[in-house]
Amino acid sequence: MPFKTIEWKNNTVRLLDQTLLPNEVKYLPIADEKAMWEAIRMLRVRGAPAIGVAAAYGLYVGVARTKPKNLKAFKRTVEKVAAYLATSRPTAVNLFWALKRCVNVASLMCEDTTVSAAHAELLAEAKRIHAEDFQTCELIGAHGAPLLTGCNGVITHCNTGALATAGMGTALAVILKAAEKTCFTVFADETRPLLQGARLTAWELQQAGVETRLICDNMAGSVMKRGMVQAAIVGADRIAANGDAANKVGTMPLAIVCQFYKVPFYVAAPLSTFDLKLKSGDEIPIEERSAEEITTFGGRSVAPRGTQVFAPAFDVTPAKLIAGIVTEVGVLRPPYKRSIAAAFHRKGRS
Amino acid sequence: MPFKTIEWKNNTVRLLDQTLLPNEVKYLPIADEKAMWEAIRMLRVRGAPAIGVAAAYGLYVGVARTKPKNLKAFKRTVEKVAAYLATSRPTAVNLFWALKRCVNVASLMCEDTTVSAAHAELLAEAKRIHAEDFQTCELIGAHGAPLLTGCNGVITHCNTGALATAGMGTALAVILKAAEKTCFTVFADETRPLLQGARLTAWELQQAGVETRLICDNMAGSVMKRGMVQAAIVGADRIAANGDAANKVGTMPLAIVCQFYKVPFYVAAPLSTFDLKLKSGDEIPIEERSAEEITTFGGRSVAPRGTQVFAPAFDVTPAKLIAGIVTEVGVLRPPYKRSIAAAFHRKGRS
Repeated sequence: MPFKTIEWKNNTVRLLDQTLLPNEVKYLPIADEKAMWEAIRMLRVRGAPAIGVAAAYGLYVGVARTKPKNLKAFKRTVEKVAAYLATSRPTAVNLFWALKRCVNVASLMCEDTTVSAAHAELLAEAKRIHAEDFQTCELIGAHGAPLLTGCNGVITHCNTGALATAGMGTALAVILKAAEKTCFTVFADETRPLLQGARLTAWELQQAGVETRLICDNMAGSVMKRGMVQAAIVGADRIAANGDAANKVGTMPLAIVCQFYKVPFYVAAPLSTFDLKLKSGDEIPIEERSAEEITTFGGRSVAPRGTQVFAPAFDVTPAKLIAGIVTEVGVLRPPYKRSIAAAFHRKGRS
Repeated sequence: MPFKTIEWKNNTVRLLDQTLLPNEVKYLPIADEKAMWEAIRMLRVRGAPAIGVAAAYGLYVGVARTKPKNLKAFKRTVEKVAAYLATSRPTAVNLFWALKRCVNVASLMCEDTTVSAAHAELLAEAKRIHAEDFQTCELIGAHGAPLLTGCNGVITHCNTGALATAGMGTALAVILKAAEKTCFTVFADETRPLLQGARLTAWELQQAGVETRLICDNMAGSVMKRGMVQAAIVGADRIAANGDAANKVGTMPLAIVCQFYKVPFYVAAPLSTFDLKLKSGDEIPIEERSAEEITTFGGRSVAPRGTQVFAPAFDVTPAKLIAGIVTEVGVLRPPYKRSIAAAFHRKGRS
């Protein structure tokens, strides 16, 4: 990889500022939890798995900065900083999942743990989450690649590659692994309003040497009508127990258009993206973002002054439109309630 | 109307340059057919009915400029300039329809017509097309308005208002007429890549005082999922004999999402938009536009250098997804082959 989305180096965490891509490659040192909160909120780091990893490091630097005097104060600070970081974005469950892992590690520390050892253990957990995500991406890529065998074209939405994870990606890992054996064209939705497809996915695919055509989100129907793609694969920010999957806004209409043109629609996500407390996608909170993300572009106005917007950042694709969910333990198939429960059962035993 | 999309004044035609809206209101005098070709090609004037009116005036100024010496030369010039203007854009049939009307007028001129009278007759035909379109818009608005009675929200795509026609619009005329009696919110798709919804529709609706929410095209599914709209209505650039309707790219996936959420999807267009020579939408030529319209924004790059695109400007909505087509002679209903033929039969007799 010619870039590092999140890097732990010289006792500090650095993020690649994704809001500046592809025009500028700039790394951002994160000094404390406030800087990490801002980075997540402003999408300098984005992608559900990457947000989880970033939050874990953010928790560590935030706690380290406050220098708690004893273990009790340490544990209290961990909880406080974690609760704060959890408010940065509401939809991607990996954020809460990673923070909870770290809080659990802290809460289980024995009374005789020194504060210094506690700090070390908190950092070690962040590094474990980081390393595990790398490995998870490899497995998702390997399990999913056969789904794309024989495709002439594949369509994807938003960015789900190395920039969205700590490894090679989720949906993009599947695409990249498959592209090693099959020659196809990737149609990348530009993904309005923030153009993660144009700025990030096209950039990653170009660096990987995979043939890519950028399209506006509303051109996916034309691509399918002309038979240019035989599969769609996207990531997810939160998946309910029944398989309903929240992902970047525009994913659900893409899935509906896939159904119309009989193009199989796949989701790729680690098990950390599943939220089994939620029975269905109706329970997933959907973040709404500011009007300026739609009404302005590069500081320039593209709509009349005073224009009102409706700006959901995510939508929920109903499980019935999903042909398979690619995870690190294999491809889950409908009925999802059963296959998801079985996957977690298997994982719990392993 | 606080603006004139196309205006004949002081023996010349002026266009409102729509590429500069909403930031700048600037009128463009058109000196000859080349200037009109460029204005149509670059979308300074756009919208199927407006293109037809503009082309008719463009033909007149182009022919007048060459000062043909006799009627034979006049007729030859009319044909030549019309053929040239017809190459400006390939999809909207109103362009060819208006030019054909003018060519017919010229070809039917008696041998003893003076050149000066011939010029006057050509201008008169352009003015007739202009005036008829104004009247047609009124009728479309009146026929279509009852379809939106009782709606809390209506969704539309691209721009189909006064800026797209010589009157109050097609789909937007229906919305404006209905808004006089029913209070609803219009959800306006921004319409990538050229943002006609954000720049033009939001602007027109704001001036008309109709409550509007601008959305990215990929948010229409979220709007419908939440029950925020009870109807969709759009314009058309060419409608085949079976009711398949070409319109701005993104219309067809919008219609598919409407079907999924059981939201009735209407098309509004004058009879001049129908092309009965074409049996189905598969025969409609689809314009593809340049990569820069997707990869740059306001002169600034939003995708990596060298990014390839697929950039159809239009798509075709299958007739089976269309609940009704609003025309100046009434609302046509499925089966369209029959209702369209009947409408033209009625019109022919009137």
